[in-house]
Amino acid sequence: MSTTAPEIPDRMRANVLTGKRSMEMQERPVPTPGPGEVLIKVRTVGVCGSDVHYYTDGRIGDMIVDGPLVLGHEVSGVIAAVGPGVDEGRVGERVAIEPQRPCRVCRACTTGHLNLCPEMKFYATPPIDGAFAEYVTAPAEFAFAVPDTLSDAAAALLEPLSVGLWACRKAGIGPGDRVLITGAGPIGALAAVAARSYGAAEVIVTDPVASRRERIAAFGATATHDPAAADFAPETLAVDAFIECSGATPAMLAGLRALRRGGTAVMVGMGADEMTLPVQLIARNELVLTGIFRYVDTWPTAIAIAGQPDVDLDALVTAEFALEDAESALNADADPLSMKSCVVVSRG
Amino acid sequence: MSTTAPEIPDRMRANVLTGKRSMEMQERPVPTPGPGEVLIKVRTVGVCGSDVHYYTDGRIGDMIVDGPLVLGHEVSGVIAAVGPGVDEGRVGERVAIEPQRPCRVCRACTTGHLNLCPEMKFYATPPIDGAFAEYVTAPAEFAFAVPDTLSDAAAALLEPLSVGLWACRKAGIGPGDRVLITGAGPIGALAAVAARSYGAAEVIVTDPVASRRERIAAFGATATHDPAAADFAPETLAVDAFIECSGATPAMLAGLRALRRGGTAVMVGMGADEMTLPVQLIARNELVLTGIFRYVDTWPTAIAIAGQPDVDLDALVTAEFALEDAESALNADADPLSMKSCVVVSRG
Amino acid sequence: MSTTAPEIPDRMRANVLTGKRSMEMQERPVPTPGPGEVLIKVRTVGVCGSDVHYYTDGRIGDMIVDGPLVLGHEVSGVIAAVGPGVDEGRVGERVAIEPQRPCRVCRACTTGHLNLCPEMKFYATPPIDGAFAEYVTAPAEFAFAVPDTLSDAAAALLEPLSVGLWACRKAGIGPGDRVLITGAGPIGALAAVAARSYGAAEVIVTDPVASRRERIAAFGATATHDPAAADFAPETLAVDAFIECSGATPAMLAGLRALRRGGTAVMVGMGADEMTLPVQLIARNELVLTGIFRYVDTWPTAIAIAGQPDVDLDALVTAEFALEDAESALNADADPLSMKSCVVVSRG
Amino acid sequence: MSTTAPEIPDRMRANVLTGKRSMEMQERPVPTPGPGEVLIKVRTVGVCGSDVHYYTDGRIGDMIVDGPLVLGHEVSGVIAAVGPGVDEGRVGERVAIEPQRPCRVCRACTTGHLNLCPEMKFYATPPIDGAFAEYVTAPAEFAFAVPDTLSDAAAALLEPLSVGLWACRKAGIGPGDRVLITGAGPIGALAAVAARSYGAAEVIVTDPVASRRERIAAFGATATHDPAAADFAPETLAVDAFIECSGATPAMLAGLRALRRGGTAVMVGMGADEMTLPVQLIARNELVLTGIFRYVDTWPTAIAIAGQPDVDLDALVTAEFALEDAESALNADADPLSMKSCVVVSRG
Repeated sequence: MSTTAPEIPDRMRANVLTGKRSMEMQERPVPTPGPGEVLIKVRTVGVCGSDVHYYTDGRIGDMIVDGPLVLGHEVSGVIAAVGPGVDEGRVGERVAIEPQRPCRVCRACTTGHLNLCPEMKFYATPPIDGAFAEYVTAPAEFAFAVPDTLSDAAAALLEPLSVGLWACRKAGIGPGDRVLITGAGPIGALAAVAARSYGAAEVIVTDPVASRRERIAAFGATATHDPAAADFAPETLAVDAFIECSGATPAMLAGLRALRRGGTAVMVGMGADEMTLPVQLIARNELVLTGIFRYVDTWPTAIAIAGQPDVDLDALVTAEFALEDAESALNADADPLSMKSCVVVSRG
Repeated sequence: MSTTAPEIPDRMRANVLTGKRSMEMQERPVPTPGPGEVLIKVRTVGVCGSDVHYYTDGRIGDMIVDGPLVLGHEVSGVIAAVGPGVDEGRVGERVAIEPQRPCRVCRACTTGHLNLCPEMKFYATPPIDGAFAEYVTAPAEFAFAVPDTLSDAAAALLEPLSVGLWACRKAGIGPGDRVLITGAGPIGALAAVAARSYGAAEVIVTDPVASRRERIAAFGATATHDPAAADFAPETLAVDAFIECSGATPAMLAGLRALRRGGTAVMVGMGADEMTLPVQLIARNELVLTGIFRYVDTWPTAIAIAGQPDVDLDALVTAEFALEDAESALNADADPLSMKSCVVVSRG
Repeated sequence: MSTTAPEIPDRMRANVLTGKRSMEMQERPVPTPGPGEVLIKVRTVGVCGSDVHYYTDGRIGDMIVDGPLVLGHEVSGVIAAVGPGVDEGRVGERVAIEPQRPCRVCRACTTGHLNLCPEMKFYATPPIDGAFAEYVTAPAEFAFAVPDTLSDAAAALLEPLSVGLWACRKAGIGPGDRVLITGAGPIGALAAVAARSYGAAEVIVTDPVASRRERIAAFGATATHDPAAADFAPETLAVDAFIECSGATPAMLAGLRALRRGGTAVMVGMGADEMTLPVQLIARNELVLTGIFRYVDTWPTAIAIAGQPDVDLDALVTAEFALEDAESALNADADPLSMKSCVVVSRG
Repeated sequence: MSTTAPEIPDRMRANVLTGKRSMEMQERPVPTPGPGEVLIKVRTVGVCGSDVHYYTDGRIGDMIVDGPLVLGHEVSGVIAAVGPGVDEGRVGERVAIEPQRPCRVCRACTTGHLNLCPEMKFYATPPIDGAFAEYVTAPAEFAFAVPDTLSDAAAALLEPLSVGLWACRKAGIGPGDRVLITGAGPIGALAAVAARSYGAAEVIVTDPVASRRERIAAFGATATHDPAAADFAPETLAVDAFIECSGATPAMLAGLRALRRGGTAVMVGMGADEMTLPVQLIARNELVLTGIFRYVDTWPTAIAIAGQPDVDLDALVTAEFALEDAESALNADADPLSMKSCVVVSRG
């Protein structure tokens, strides 16, 4: 039995992916928060590259959309009701949602690696619905209170910032480090923000598109390069860490050459399933190559960082759309000149 | 045979500790840089609490001054000559000195723990002379080029900043962390600078002296407390890390109570040889208690940090003295209201 | 609704601590396994020093027995029934129990530190009942299948072996290391087993009792010392790690002096709340002092180790008692010449 | 001026690689140990795959033999003389040699990564001569005293055991772990020994050659597989760590599929410069891929391990040759059915 504020309706609107490049507004029952869960009235939902992939391709690798799916996993909102066992005082709280539901009992979950839980349920990953809808539920502890100083959009963007933070943590970035980020899209930008938060003194960003390179300085980049330029020589960079955010194979290869001996490469961007890599270079230089899959325990840090005076997550938002226009948001986000499109489901 | 520029004299002036509270200007031969070493014309030398200890007590623990000793180990200068095997092009380079001479062949040295080398020779630690003198020698790789944007005093203060950085590294500070620093003197201030560089979101500083608490905000503190105040309740802080910079036993005890479960305490301040500690609290909460002895590989990071726009090492300097007035600098630095006294040996 | 085999009775016998040094056989309802839980028919329960503390003192620190309490948290048994959501095929499985019930949703639980969960429910820790009873429930994933080659007693002793493993992990023991263990009781013995499993080449054990020193070689000790002997000079040992298993303050002090620079001390034994420690030694030598509180994810490792040919957990058992004689087991275990008393509740 | 025992001759014999597949006995001056060095009368030299590569191909990657080169870097011997600054008491000491001469002053050397020193001089790596000769010099601290219980061959094989240890350390192997090793040659065998020393409970080894699979059980393997067998399904193994010792691309691919989520792969075997790898699998499962280049600080550990009762390094030696027959040793070692050929230069 959940405690609900009186104004919660029985039915809600959701914008549903019903097939490749096919979206449809549907009416659905408002979900009921279970034990330990909260019901959240959705405010803003950021559009992620993975949403676009599902929309255009119907799949990401072996994760295949085979039924109607609600997209959207970068979410802010307001707690509208709480399920059994949750403090009723949280109703009305503005929150950012960590969109994971781990099983909590497997060895991954009990040892600090819940992102690797084989039973994970994750918003907007088939067959779990996401947040292009008026209401969603989430585990109470994955709905994080956000300060008033953070906009609804900024609160939603704590999710991609979490991706950047997790990448930087895997990369072992520390004060004074020199970091290369390939790709100046939203994830590259937030990886740059994260790298600065970890103390990186130099954040070098490559992107073939000039306007993207120009924009990235506002997110902490200290230098940019066109990877196609004749004078770009990655092997001279000797960076401590390399964060691949483009998914492009040539960027991956350039980044590996840019690492100092003993440096670390972290794959974030989704590109080809396979790449031909210089394995003897990796061995001889004791490089470390890894990648990330979501994150663990990043929202508290992301909230702290988003509140720093030199960090402006809102600057990432290039367009806003209404819930019924989510398809336009998906199409806008697919444009490489766009940074981040948001779907504004409700306002405070 | 070292390569020397023509203007290097044979003799130099040094201000020598000849007994407890007894300093004397002496003329000494200018040292000759050995293989792999450089000769440095000293610019600015910061006064450290350990210099004051040797001056007032003639000892620190079992390190006893039993002959004339030149104090001073926070040093900037200009390379005046190079020893065999060192690039002559470095003559004229402005440098900050890491005042260590490890043996390089023991197991500590070959495994990344050179600060723990049992054969270490360290400036101003009996019987090794320091830098209250016109010239010193140092291993070439421990004389770090500093940019023009860094003043001579700031370059000297990279040494105590290194102490702060090493403490933060041992404390495992990361983005978003909450850190407690006890003691708002120069080391506390530079530990605060370092903690922010590691990404700390909150840096809480305690000090019984109001003027010291006020001054510390300029170095990154986000909150201060008078530890004697009736409403100071360390057990409510739940900090991730605690850096003890006062040497005061009550500060140590308060800090241990302030740590969250699994948090880390790092002792930097020199106080009593023994303290009565709550060992069951440490065990039950899996706290980690450690301390630092100097540092390893911190100058590159310190130089990067000192160049950040919100970091102003010069603000730490409360008084400057000539070489012949080094004793006044030692006495000034003993005043708890002083931050950092510097001895200016020469100017650019 | 739990799936139960027909032979489970409604009522069971338990041996209950009803006051200081007062035990009483009581009839109680057999517990019902909740969702995700299993019901276990208890086989063997080891007696731990903490059980003895509760029996003799009615408290351990601020954990106070203020009502009837069933002791016993080192437990093996057979799954008799499963709660909702648990594979019925597990009925009949011989298991060792990890006696923790963390909340699973706090930050400690979701980041790999469930042992530090503030909402932890732990067998035989007030007010949670333990296993001196015919049946207990446990989370399904904390009931670990054990191979037939492991006796019921050995399966129960995976719990104190877990303590040893967690201590060695905190100590960072690796191949070739030299380790000091102070105290040759059951925890010291299992810490020695664990240290060898981590690759320690030398395991030096101190204990004032000659018969305990003799016995410890069977558990992996490579040398023993009487700490009261005139020629015992801990400062000559230069061990990589020190595991304190005696709770004795002099042992703690000797161990800190025995560490090499940069070495780690881990407190396991429960002794005085406060100790006067050489903090400047800790700082100057960059020693790390920490302690342990239970464990995380140690049963899989413990099971693997218990199956190694040179490990014999049964050798630790010095006496067995029936459930109704649990008080005798508690008294026997208090004898320093005893190693491990077990309560045999049922047999296979 | 070195202190030399009287019997040291002026001239010595060396077996020199003078071109591809061309070896020649030459007379050369006995080297003089410099400051901090020792002169070692060579006893036994193991033949390594890299020696064979230089012999057959004249190069390994970009390390090219362009002049006469003495091969051999797995070396034991006896200290015959010491250079300035070295304890004369070491003359006569039986030693195993760590064949590295790092610069000691670069950032890699001063921070614990001397194996990555860009100025490294390494035995038998062009243009540095190795140990197919009667005498060699080495830094005093890289000549490790070995106990009488270790044969000359075993002392030489501490070098490839160090490779195995370093690989296991990079792989983060701990007690109870399940490890996959691909390739049952000498390095695979010693990686298995090392993995057991780190506590691995299961060491699964694959090799296409049956006789090699049979032999490996003596070195700690707990299971073996023919990778070409129809029923070999690496994806079912879920190993914690994977150590690639074959250089074969299919082995690499199988190993990556064999890793559990979050597991680590370490490349040791030298194979193709490039491999086509499943990068999305690496990212999605947060696998860590790295490799090793030599080692740091492994001899003390290797000596401790070689002295364990269940470790028999001599069992690895399949043939011994005199110095003048070094070419036969190189040809024997190239045979996949051989394990380790040794060149016996002198005997005790």
